[in-house]
Amino acid sequence: MNEVTSDHLLTALVDEDFTVAADLLGATDPFDARLFLERLDLNERAIAFRLLEKNRALAVFEGFSPSLQSELVGALGEADVADVFQKMNLDDRVELLDELPAKIAGRMVQHLTPEERQLTSVVLGYPQGSIGRRMSPEYFRAFPDESVGEVLDRLSATEVGSDDETMYVIPVSTPNRTLLGVVDLTALLRAPREDEVSAHMGPAVSVLAEESAEVAARRLVDRRLFGLSITDREGGVVGLVTVDDALRILDQAQEEDEARAGSREPLRRPYLSTPVRTITRSRIVWLFILGISAILTVNVLEVFEATLEQRVTLALFIPLLTGIGGNTGSQAATTVTRALATGQVRVGDIGRIAFKEVRAGFAMGAILGAVGGLVAGVVYDAGLGWVIGLTLLGICSMAATVGGSMPLLAKAARVDPAVVSTPFITTFCDATGLLLYFTIAQVVLGL
Amino acid sequence: MNEVTSDHLLTALVDEDFTVAADLLGATDPFDARLFLERLDLNERAIAFRLLEKNRALAVFEGFSPSLQSELVGALGEADVADVFQKMNLDDRVELLDELPAKIAGRMVQHLTPEERQLTSVVLGYPQGSIGRRMSPEYFRAFPDESVGEVLDRLSATEVGSDDETMYVIPVSTPNRTLLGVVDLTALLRAPREDEVSAHMGPAVSVLAEESAEVAARRLVDRRLFGLSITDREGGVVGLVTVDDALRILDQAQEEDEARAGSREPLRRPYLSTPVRTITRSRIVWLFILGISAILTVNVLEVFEATLEQRVTLALFIPLLTGIGGNTGSQAATTVTRALATGQVRVGDIGRIAFKEVRAGFAMGAILGAVGGLVAGVVYDAGLGWVIGLTLLGICSMAATVGGSMPLLAKAARVDPAVVSTPFITTFCDATGLLLYFTIAQVVLGL
Repeated sequence: MNEVTSDHLLTALVDEDFTVAADLLGATDPFDARLFLERLDLNERAIAFRLLEKNRALAVFEGFSPSLQSELVGALGEADVADVFQKMNLDDRVELLDELPAKIAGRMVQHLTPEERQLTSVVLGYPQGSIGRRMSPEYFRAFPDESVGEVLDRLSATEVGSDDETMYVIPVSTPNRTLLGVVDLTALLRAPREDEVSAHMGPAVSVLAEESAEVAARRLVDRRLFGLSITDREGGVVGLVTVDDALRILDQAQEEDEARAGSREPLRRPYLSTPVRTITRSRIVWLFILGISAILTVNVLEVFEATLEQRVTLALFIPLLTGIGGNTGSQAATTVTRALATGQVRVGDIGRIAFKEVRAGFAMGAILGAVGGLVAGVVYDAGLGWVIGLTLLGICSMAATVGGSMPLLAKAARVDPAVVSTPFITTFCDATGLLLYFTIAQVVLGL
Repeated sequence: MNEVTSDHLLTALVDEDFTVAADLLGATDPFDARLFLERLDLNERAIAFRLLEKNRALAVFEGFSPSLQSELVGALGEADVADVFQKMNLDDRVELLDELPAKIAGRMVQHLTPEERQLTSVVLGYPQGSIGRRMSPEYFRAFPDESVGEVLDRLSATEVGSDDETMYVIPVSTPNRTLLGVVDLTALLRAPREDEVSAHMGPAVSVLAEESAEVAARRLVDRRLFGLSITDREGGVVGLVTVDDALRILDQAQEEDEARAGSREPLRRPYLSTPVRTITRSRIVWLFILGISAILTVNVLEVFEATLEQRVTLALFIPLLTGIGGNTGSQAATTVTRALATGQVRVGDIGRIAFKEVRAGFAMGAILGAVGGLVAGVVYDAGLGWVIGLTLLGICSMAATVGGSMPLLAKAARVDPAVVSTPFITTFCDATGLLLYFTIAQVVLGL
C-alpha cells in the first residue's frame, strides 16, 4: 500500500467515514492491510478489523503475531472472532490458544466442530516448544502396496484443510501408521500409474514429536527437505512439518536469540504496536542483572584506588580498555553461539575452540597492543605506552578465550548460550581486564 | 553419525586405511558425512572426499559453504571435482563460481555443456546480492488456455534438473513469457482435466530480478508463499524462487546481521574449519574502528581530569555507568534493527520511535537510578548517591533514544543498520554518558 492510500485510509478511520475505509481496505491486498493495521492503536485496529470482509479478515488475522491476536480478541469480543478462529490453520490456532487467558481460550474452543476440537487437543497435548505443537496432525499419507494411480486419485479427492503444502512430501506407512519412507508428489506424477508406491519411496527423515521445534526445523533445513515426518516413540507417524513451518519456527528462534544477545527479551509483536510499558519490561530485568554484576568492576577498582590516586591519568583509559575487552569477548561468543546453534560445534570441542580463540585473541592483542602502546607512548610517556600495549595484549587473549568458551559452558549447564553471550561476558571481561590493567600498571610504573 | 563411528573413521583416515574409511563413509548418510568432513583439516578433508562414491560426493559437496567448496577445488585439482561441478544445482554452482579465483572459475565453466553454460551465464549476469543470482532460471510454466490435463501430462514428462520443488507453484504466462498468474500443483491435481488453466489461476506475487535477494526472500516468507516469480522490467518471467531458496537466503542474511551486531564479519564457513588467521581478519578491523572511536572517551575524561583528581572515587563507577549506557543503547538498537529488517517500521517513523524510546529509557533510568542512587548513597555518601542516580536517569534516556534512532539514520544514509548497532552506539553512549556523569558530579558535588 503506498503512503497516499495509507494516509487516506487513516483519515477515513479517524473521521469515522467507515464506508470509504471499508472500500479502501477491500482494495488492498491482505498483506498490506495487515501491515497497516499493525501500525494502528488497539482501538483503531479493532475498528478497522471489523471493516474487513470475511476472507480478508482471516488472512489478516492469521498474519498477526499471537500476542496481537490475543489482544484483538479481548478488544473485539469472542463472538466477532469466532468465525475467524474456526477457519484458522491449526498451528496458528494452537499458538493463539497458548497466548489467550485460560478462561477465554476454553470458551473459544467451544466454537469449534468436535473434529477440530479433537485435532486441536492432540496438538495441545505436546509440551510447549516441542515440534508436536507446530506440526500438522492432518496430512496425506500413502501405503507401500498402493499403486501410484490410486494414490493420485485419492489425493485429488482429498481436502486436507487449507494445508495443501503437506501434500508435496507424502509419508508412506503401514495401516497402523508405522513410518516406512516418503515419496515426493513430483515423483508420483512422473511414475507409471500402475507402479507400486514402494518402488518410488525414499528414506524418511523423522523427528520425535516431543523433540524441540527448533532442533527439528534445523534438521529439515540442513538436509534441504521439504517435509519432515513427526513420529511417536513407537515409530508411528503423528504429523508432518513442512518447510514453511520450519521457516517460521527458525524466524521466531532467531528473534529470541537476537534479543538475548542484545540482552533483552523478544517482543514477539510488531514494535510500533508495543506499549512503552511492555518495551520497558522486556529490558529492565537484563539491565538490573547487568548492573548488579557490574558492581564487580566497582570492587576491582576500589582495590586499586590508591594506585589511581597516585596516577589519575590511568583512569582515562578505563572505558577504552573495557570497551575493547568486552567487544573481543562478544565477537568470540557470538561466533561460537552461532556455530553451536547450527550444529557445527559440540560441547566436547571446548578444547579445540579455546585453543583457536586464544591464538586469535593473542594475534589481535599483539596488533592492537603494538599500535595502541606506540600511540600512548608518544602522546603520554613510554611507561604508559608499555602499560597500554601489554594490557591490550592480555585483555584480547583473555577475552577471546573466555568469550569462546562461555557459550559451551552455558550449553553444558543447560542454559541458553545466547543468554550468556553479551552481558555476562562483557562484565566478566571488564572486571578481569581492569585487574590486569592495574596489575601491569603497578609493575611497569612501579606504583 | 555417533561418536564411536566418527572416531573409528578418523583413525582409519590417519592410519591411511582407506578401504575401511571408504566403507564407513559409504554407510553414513550424506548429511552426517558432510558434518564429519567439515571438522577435518583441509588435507584430510580432501582425502576423505576422494573416498566418497559419486552420488554421495555430490550431496556432500553441495552442502559445503562456497568458501569451503572453493578451498576443496584448490586442494583436489579441477579434474577431481569436474564431475560434481557439472551436476550441482545451478544456484549452488553460481555461488561457487563467485567464490573461485577468476582463472579457475573460467576453466571450470569449460566442463559444462553449452546449455548449462548458457544458463549459468544468464544467472551470473545479474548483480551480486540480487534475487536474479539466486533464482532457478529453469522452471516449469503453463499457459492460460492449456487444459489442466495437458499441463499435468507435460509435467510428468519433464525433467527440470533436480529442482523438482520448482513444480509446486507454476507460473502461468503468455507464450512471450509475460506473467499472468500462478497455479498450485495441488489445485491442478484436484481440478477436472478438461478445465482451462486460467480457471484455477491465482494472482502472482513477483519480484524484479535486480531486487535484493533478502527483500525478495522476506516477501515470500511474509506472504507465506511457496514460490515467487522473478520477472524482468517488461514483466516477463525469467525464473522462480522457492521457499527453500528463501530460507537459505534469510539464513545467510541472518548470519551477516548477527556478525555485524557482534562487530565482526561473518565467517561464511564452519567455525572449526576456519584458520585462526581468517578468524583474526574477520574481527581485527572492527576492533580498530572501535578503538579509534573510543579515543573520544579518553578525550572526554581528559577534560575532567582535574575533577577526577579532586575525587578519585568517581573513577570507580566509570565501567558500571558506561556498561549500562552501552547496553541500553544496544537493546534499543537491536530492537529497531529487527523491526526495520522485517518491514515493521520505516525510516519515516523516526519521530514515533524516538518518542517511544525516550519514554522507555526514562522509565528504565528512573527505576535503575532510584535503586542505584540509594545504594551508592548508603555505601558512600548522599552526594554520590544523587550523582549516580541522576546520571543513570540521564544515560538511560539518552542511550535508548540514540540507540533507537541510529539504525534509522543509518538506513537513511544507505548504510547497513546492523553495522552501526553495537560498536558505534556503545562508543557514542560511553562518551556522552561520561560527559553527563562528570557534569552532574561537578554541579551536585560542587567540584
